[in-house]
Amino acid sequence: MAVFSGPLQSLIDELGRLPGIGPKSAQRITFHLLKVAPEDALRLAEAIIAVKERITLCTRCFNVAEGGLCAICLVDRRDAASVCVVEDPRDIVSVERTGEFSGKYHVLQGALNPIEGIGPDQLRVRELLVRVEEEDIKEVILCTNPNLEGEATAMYLARLLKPMGLTVTRIASGLPVGGDLEYADELTLGRALEGRREVEA
Amino acid sequence: MAVFSGPLQSLIDELGRLPGIGPKSAQRITFHLLKVAPEDALRLAEAIIAVKERITLCTRCFNVAEGGLCAICLVDRRDAASVCVVEDPRDIVSVERTGEFSGKYHVLQGALNPIEGIGPDQLRVRELLVRVEEEDIKEVILCTNPNLEGEATAMYLARLLKPMGLTVTRIASGLPVGGDLEYADELTLGRALEGRREVEA
Repeated sequence: MAVFSGPLQSLIDELGRLPGIGPKSAQRITFHLLKVAPEDALRLAEAIIAVKERITLCTRCFNVAEGGLCAICLVDRRDAASVCVVEDPRDIVSVERTGEFSGKYHVLQGALNPIEGIGPDQLRVRELLVRVEEEDIKEVILCTNPNLEGEATAMYLARLLKPMGLTVTRIASGLPVGGDLEYADELTLGRALEGRREVEA
Repeated sequence: MAVFSGPLQSLIDELGRLPGIGPKSAQRITFHLLKVAPEDALRLAEAIIAVKERITLCTRCFNVAEGGLCAICLVDRRDAASVCVVEDPRDIVSVERTGEFSGKYHVLQGALNPIEGIGPDQLRVRELLVRVEEEDIKEVILCTNPNLEGEATAMYLARLLKPMGLTVTRIASGLPVGGDLEYADELTLGRALEGRREVEA
């Protein structure tokens, strides 16, 4: 529904294509940009162009990078024997924030999803297998999402990796810290019971 | 909280400054733009630049325009004797959609709001008075929002315009069509009673 004309409607249309932005938000942002100082709007336009021109995928782990290797692959003191496999570069940020992991990463760039036509060939699976063969990797931590697609991907990778003679682990599912048994869904509580550990005291 | 570096974080920051976009949405949009074809991202950047370069405010009514007069002021067959005063150019779209008005507009570019330092001098009030003096305007319809700021603005304008010898009207407040008495707030219902009209039968 084009209610404005020319450049205004073009911008509304372009913004409306972004994830999570509906027609009303697109209008609101357009009129906001109309009001701000020209240099502020241009900074946004230039930031978009810079991302498309300068950001690439790491040639080793497929994290975001600025040409060649990513910031994490470039750090020598990180433990190259331990590789954490994630779906998306943003997941690296989540893992890094825990402070619990000091190894390297491998970004699959998605998860198996037959309905949407995403099979192993659409993901960076072959590149992971090459890394396992060529690098001195002792443990692969499967850190895909604990949903249907992520679990299937983890199972698939585990079956490929285990025969290669290295430790393959999966992150634990269970109750979130600060959570409440009363509000836990039965699947999560079931997983928490299944993954119970002996109390060290 | 800058978790990415360089151009990625710059784009996340710039997007986060837009209305209604929080840090998570900004990240999501940034990674979406990283994935789309370069020409799609560039189209968005160019649309922003085009809006800032080409869109101006109508020199007569302060609606959005592409240089000089806006699309509505340029139409001769619209009734120039009737002017609808709105806060924002987007309100013109809402009024036009009703199909009930065929006059001209005047966009105040806001509403009186002493707390935020918006007085008559920050709005296009003087320009409205000049138009009333110079053009052959018979009726001014005050179509500001039915909230505190909009009502105050309407009252203020009515007091200025009435002595100039023209009809000054305010849009009706009342129950929305398809509404329900049970769920109407008392202010709205009060206004609806106050604005009751004799049934023509």
